[in-house]
Amino acid sequence: MVERLSEAARRAALDALPDWSELPDREAITRTLKFKDFGQAFGFMAQVALVAEKHDHHPEWRNVYNTVEVTLTTHDAGGVTARDVDLARAIDAIAAPLSPR
Amino acid sequence: MVERLSEAARRAALDALPDWSELPDREAITRTLKFKDFGQAFGFMAQVALVAEKHDHHPEWRNVYNTVEVTLTTHDAGGVTARDVDLARAIDAIAAPLSPR
Repeated sequence: MVERLSEAARRAALDALPDWSELPDREAITRTLKFKDFGQAFGFMAQVALVAEKHDHHPEWRNVYNTVEVTLTTHDAGGVTARDVDLARAIDAIAAPLSPR
Repeated sequence: MVERLSEAARRAALDALPDWSELPDREAITRTLKFKDFGQAFGFMAQVALVAEKHDHHPEWRNVYNTVEVTLTTHDAGGVTARDVDLARAIDAIAAPLSPR
């Protein structure tokens, strides 16, 4: 089982993920992305879904038209793990060419 | 522009949509679907996304692994309209063969 990151490791990981922040009320990291339209937002989600399924690690997410709020945490570990950091990096790489705000 | 349904019309529409209920705090209708796994949940979302895009009327939705919470309202009309009822019916038709709980 993958281990929950220490607070120091979590902070260091977040320093390298400038578009992500910690949730105030849960040990989880979050990013909100705003795309041009629904098609682009859902296209992004479809790409993330494939990566998530491949690694068997899935986001919690909410979509309203062109906006996607993504939250990552590892339920089994009760907090943020390397799997969340890896998925956050993959999400940033998928989003980058779509130029979300 | 499509008109907001009267309370009576909304109730009648909901009577014909037994899996949907009204949100307590907003004029919107909601259904939560639980699928076998993430693949099935996201496959459902992909089908709904195509229908939503075709009709240019989009759900607000949240997905956590095998669960999808869908909320429908018409922002322009400030409430529930025939467009929401039509999308709810389409969602039920897409979900039915997947046997969500």
